[in-house]
Amino acid sequence: MVVTTDASLPPICVLGLGLIGGSLLRAVADSGREVYGYNRSEAGADAAVAAGYTASTDLEETLGWAAAGDALIVVATPATTLDDLLPRIAELAPDCRLTDVVSVKEAVTRAVARHHPTARYVGGHPMAGTSRSGWSATDPDLFRGAMWMVSTGDDADADTWHTIATLALSVGSLVVPAADDAHDRAVAAISHLPHLTADVTAAVGAGESGLALRLAAGSFRDGTRVAGTAPALQRAMLEANGVALLNVLSEAIDRLTAARDELRDHGTVEVLTDDGHRARLAYDEVAGAEPSAITGVTVGADGWQEELRRQAHQGKVWMG
Amino acid sequence: MVVTTDASLPPICVLGLGLIGGSLLRAVADSGREVYGYNRSEAGADAAVAAGYTASTDLEETLGWAAAGDALIVVATPATTLDDLLPRIAELAPDCRLTDVVSVKEAVTRAVARHHPTARYVGGHPMAGTSRSGWSATDPDLFRGAMWMVSTGDDADADTWHTIATLALSVGSLVVPAADDAHDRAVAAISHLPHLTADVTAAVGAGESGLALRLAAGSFRDGTRVAGTAPALQRAMLEANGVALLNVLSEAIDRLTAARDELRDHGTVEVLTDDGHRARLAYDEVAGAEPSAITGVTVGADGWQEELRRQAHQGKVWMG
Repeated sequence: MVVTTDASLPPICVLGLGLIGGSLLRAVADSGREVYGYNRSEAGADAAVAAGYTASTDLEETLGWAAAGDALIVVATPATTLDDLLPRIAELAPDCRLTDVVSVKEAVTRAVARHHPTARYVGGHPMAGTSRSGWSATDPDLFRGAMWMVSTGDDADADTWHTIATLALSVGSLVVPAADDAHDRAVAAISHLPHLTADVTAAVGAGESGLALRLAAGSFRDGTRVAGTAPALQRAMLEANGVALLNVLSEAIDRLTAARDELRDHGTVEVLTDDGHRARLAYDEVAGAEPSAITGVTVGADGWQEELRRQAHQGKVWMG
Repeated sequence: MVVTTDASLPPICVLGLGLIGGSLLRAVADSGREVYGYNRSEAGADAAVAAGYTASTDLEETLGWAAAGDALIVVATPATTLDDLLPRIAELAPDCRLTDVVSVKEAVTRAVARHHPTARYVGGHPMAGTSRSGWSATDPDLFRGAMWMVSTGDDADADTWHTIATLALSVGSLVVPAADDAHDRAVAAISHLPHLTADVTAAVGAGESGLALRLAAGSFRDGTRVAGTAPALQRAMLEANGVALLNVLSEAIDRLTAARDELRDHGTVEVLTDDGHRARLAYDEVAGAEPSAITGVTVGADGWQEELRRQAHQGKVWMG
């Protein structure tokens, strides 16, 4: 099947109106498309309604709207909620296209297979966020310029993939196609480990003395920012990606231990500061340059998933 | 000896016109006071002169000005230069008051004792900086609102201490009195360790894959910012504070190892995320509140150093 790139979006149904889901509701609504949300807590739903958006605390009602309108359902709740939420989707809106914005992909894919095996599901992960959470932290511009990973395994359905990628583009993001396992290893390294290094930096610094906190400046402020994320949200992210996180955490411990031994025995931290600096320059280069567009791929054509992944591995992004 | 708080400042002689020294030259000049600088490289000195400041690459000449004008000399070069620089100061401007802005204090105090034992020296450390370096990174507002530690050991000379504290206030900083060893332990925890955790976070992230760098967002960007600092400058800071750094680095490794074991054996990272979050909230509280002023201490009166340190340990700062 070949999908054209100017396909219009179906209505969007956002489940969970925290930082990511709420920001998505606002961004889609501001772009003039039909969108509505569900939130478990009344406070979040009321805040969305008060701000002029359509939101409900009634999951059955919301999924009824989705089923009636053939909406794209976006799961924007923590990974820990999936075992409750997915069976309801399977029951009440089984035919809707389905995606999520959870920060791990293999665990979500397994949960979908368990609770809703016939789902038209393609996972996603917008690389956007702050250490704040809840509706009050939402920002319709949150996704502008962000990388939005869309699961591009060999079995990805072209129509669903294209709908989700179009949604990402419609709120200003760039689409990074990747396999679930490669994504999970990547975010373990560049998002989940940074939470633990921020946590340990904060804990050691604050534990030293009141003088230390008084003297703390830019390196501590920036290096510990994401330790301010609610512990329950940190745990939901990190613990859902345990195997990949164990690997990068072990590597970090090994490198720090080597640095400690080098400092103790030879008075230097040359290896780690050189490696760290080189790595940061590599990041600056990637982040500072306009990414190239993936070209010559028609979504749905033979081998489109592999070709998207291949070009993404060269640093290219899908721009529609 | 009792010093009044409205004492006027002597001329300021800044040795080293990198980020900190150059910013200080600009801040003091902009406040209308007499200030001049020395820089080893012509590029830095020329840039300062071209910007309208007084600067030289001739150390002998600069120290001659300082001696003739009874200047306060501020050493703003990396710790690795002290063994060359201090003997020249002892030779050419032995009677000038002397301070420094190096990020460790015990090592500098030892170097001063070795090379210039009669110096009227009181150390200092403004908690300000960026990952950029050199004259082009200088900013006359760099010190505004920053904490400027001034060494306040039991043997600190009141006149010199007061001159340095007045300099710090004159560029918008707040003065944090502390003993050298307490300072060094504190900055190991809140500045030197954060460089190593930034380095390791960067190295693990960039080593994972090109996909990882493409997906890297806020947590990686902020958590690795100071890995962008030139490795030679990182090493000069960190290696001069080896003992204190070894202690906090070992604590960080122990905490990360406990988190790894907890994740592997029980699937959770609860302890570290809770500790990190609590620590960050403690920092936010300190950083977010207007600090109280140290009161009731006359610099030079009996026991003034101990009383300043006592109030500083309560989180108060000296405001003149």
